[in-house]
Amino acid sequence: MTELSKLDLLASKIGSRHVVVAIYGLGYVGLPLALRFAEVGLKVIGFDIDADKVRKLNSNESYIERITPEKLLAARTAGFEATSDFSRTAEADALIVCVPTPLDAHRAPDLSFVTNTVDSLMPYFRSGQLLSLESTTWPGTTDEILAPRLRAQGFTPGADCALVFSPEREDPGNPDYGTKDIPKVIGGATPRCLELGTALYQLAIRTMVPVSSTRAAEMTKLLENIHRAVNIGLVNEMKIVADRMGIDIHEVIRAAATKPFGFVPYTPGPGLGGHCIPIDPFYLTWKAKEYAINTRFIELAGEINHYMPHWVVGKIADSLNEQGRSVKGSRILVLGVSYKRNIDDCRESPALEIMDLLRGKGAQVAYSDPHVPRLPKLREYEFDLESVNLDSESLRTFDCVVLTTDHDGFDYDLLAKESMLLVDTRGRFTTAGNIVSA
Amino acid sequence: MTELSKLDLLASKIGSRHVVVAIYGLGYVGLPLALRFAEVGLKVIGFDIDADKVRKLNSNESYIERITPEKLLAARTAGFEATSDFSRTAEADALIVCVPTPLDAHRAPDLSFVTNTVDSLMPYFRSGQLLSLESTTWPGTTDEILAPRLRAQGFTPGADCALVFSPEREDPGNPDYGTKDIPKVIGGATPRCLELGTALYQLAIRTMVPVSSTRAAEMTKLLENIHRAVNIGLVNEMKIVADRMGIDIHEVIRAAATKPFGFVPYTPGPGLGGHCIPIDPFYLTWKAKEYAINTRFIELAGEINHYMPHWVVGKIADSLNEQGRSVKGSRILVLGVSYKRNIDDCRESPALEIMDLLRGKGAQVAYSDPHVPRLPKLREYEFDLESVNLDSESLRTFDCVVLTTDHDGFDYDLLAKESMLLVDTRGRFTTAGNIVSA
Repeated sequence: MTELSKLDLLASKIGSRHVVVAIYGLGYVGLPLALRFAEVGLKVIGFDIDADKVRKLNSNESYIERITPEKLLAARTAGFEATSDFSRTAEADALIVCVPTPLDAHRAPDLSFVTNTVDSLMPYFRSGQLLSLESTTWPGTTDEILAPRLRAQGFTPGADCALVFSPEREDPGNPDYGTKDIPKVIGGATPRCLELGTALYQLAIRTMVPVSSTRAAEMTKLLENIHRAVNIGLVNEMKIVADRMGIDIHEVIRAAATKPFGFVPYTPGPGLGGHCIPIDPFYLTWKAKEYAINTRFIELAGEINHYMPHWVVGKIADSLNEQGRSVKGSRILVLGVSYKRNIDDCRESPALEIMDLLRGKGAQVAYSDPHVPRLPKLREYEFDLESVNLDSESLRTFDCVVLTTDHDGFDYDLLAKESMLLVDTRGRFTTAGNIVSA
Repeated sequence: MTELSKLDLLASKIGSRHVVVAIYGLGYVGLPLALRFAEVGLKVIGFDIDADKVRKLNSNESYIERITPEKLLAARTAGFEATSDFSRTAEADALIVCVPTPLDAHRAPDLSFVTNTVDSLMPYFRSGQLLSLESTTWPGTTDEILAPRLRAQGFTPGADCALVFSPEREDPGNPDYGTKDIPKVIGGATPRCLELGTALYQLAIRTMVPVSSTRAAEMTKLLENIHRAVNIGLVNEMKIVADRMGIDIHEVIRAAATKPFGFVPYTPGPGLGGHCIPIDPFYLTWKAKEYAINTRFIELAGEINHYMPHWVVGKIADSLNEQGRSVKGSRILVLGVSYKRNIDDCRESPALEIMDLLRGKGAQVAYSDPHVPRLPKLREYEFDLESVNLDSESLRTFDCVVLTTDHDGFDYDLLAKESMLLVDTRGRFTTAGNIVSA
């Protein structure tokens, strides 16, 4: 059997849907993708180094709010299983890496999850396999980090194995677009790689968007998130300007949004959260330095978005001060700790930074969030707190209530009526005696 | 007749469509609005200090490409007339100011067209009239510049006259949205002013969007244009980064645009043009300084967008250099001199700056533009040039052809085939031997 025919074999396995898919990293990206491949009838092996996640999945227990135990059961019945044993890589045909790409303490890319994963599976890599990276990363990663690892083992992408980059576009909490409905960008190390990768994903995803290179695919994902980070940074700056001028930025944004072309509304908030928007853009910033270029919009957006929690805390302090109170000793309730509406993900949530800043100033901090009954341990913060139940009585025990994430589950009439002081970072309320916009 | 009843009379004139409308400034904004009011059967008097424009309009001659002599004739038959005689202000009930608001040489607001217009009409202002400003300007202009002028003459907005700000949203060349179809934001000096202004415009505009104050309306228009300036600045910066990394930004933008949420494509180009986007944002920058705040996104966008013509000229020089040629002495043809596609407006067009920079470096510069047969005299540049007719023979006489504005009227196949060297600033062509992306 020649090396070329190994890729022909892969193509024929994909064509007959007999391809076995391995997903590395079973978080917000990898798990939905694994379930989707299982749903279309493929055998899927999910890999995660977290033994607890693996155990839970194999007992139909979900650790992501929107993925129900029923969905897990259906996937497992269809052949999905989870494991921490990387030697099982050999059983799979398509290996898809969906691990996080965070920043280190100096805002430089931390690719360790990617490299550790690839290094762990590489001993079991065999010719005829396809390797796909989905993690958001700087342009050149697939080419400069993954391809050399394959070559070091004697493999040649496009000849005896396939290598592609296909960025995830998951949007947790978006009811309109599930994994299968979101067009998926893909770039290949070679045209043959691109062809095989596209064929594989097309089994599970309605529309594939092939581009000319892995670099173009890497840049595409970055541009999407840079676009968001910059637009949110812009409206946050505009919020600060409008606030100083006595103008309600939310009213202005609503009015501007009536323009039927040329304007797209972005909503200011207490800062930027989640695992993507605050982080990904700096992957380009880091790489651009290699070319002696600065990515100034990204840096400015980062600066302004990072400042927002401090600005909100300043507004809280001012509002308490108006009532003759200090932050120190005040009882402050933060509403909504996940980074966006109607989800349970607290990563990089500005609400937690606001809680931390307030606690640092001596406030007694509590929170309420229908999606987060108990605050998980996170990389940066630790709060030993449980969600406060919201009613007239509990609300009245707080000197200040801060709306940070406007879940649909909150009773906004109750909040407006019973809060002694309500600081609204989401433009949800009309300013009133007890309600301050921040 | 009490003072209040003067406004009642205005309301009843509006209600019965017997209101006479005066439009000050018959340019790209004022003329279409005047024609629209005439179209719905109102008597309209158009004012302009430019006697030539007045003469032309009164002879059914148009000076704006998309406004046909037939439209003018219809409007004049319906009762529209143009004049330079400001004393005729007394004949009108609603006075709408549509004059330009440029920047001075130090990027500070130049409100002289607004103040000169208002000072010219003020001697003829009478109670029961409505004054509306449409010119884009800093938040507070209506309140701080117009209202005092009314009060100085003894008028009180909301009592014996009405004062509103309702920003124009014209989009020249947009075939989908004419004047009447674009929802119109409006803010009043008082609730009564807002009510009267809304009623007036509703005679001609399908959807009015009332906001709480003239400041909010002023800020709305600025936010719309700031949003565009910043997003164009961002993709221009990304173009520079991608170019350095060997990535085609146009391919990346097209791929990103397949994301069905959270991303809106903006197109990089040779710089920012037109009378709005490069200018308006700095009105906020200027005003913000009064509050000791910087508008950093606006300044960064301005800096990058202003740099783009220089960047393009650098790319042209590099491309000629590759062929062993200097800019000096090269024959360079610039394609498209209006600031955007399919229109004839050359104001602030980056194409002209590129021509000026190339001429400064000793190039022999020519242009071709189906919408601009002869270059008009402009504030900053003077070129004694006529549009070159494009054919195989004429194209071959140029060392370099630069696509600056991608009008539909160009023959792109011909350009790709016959240009010795084609520098494409619009992502219209696939890069090839003779085609360079810039």
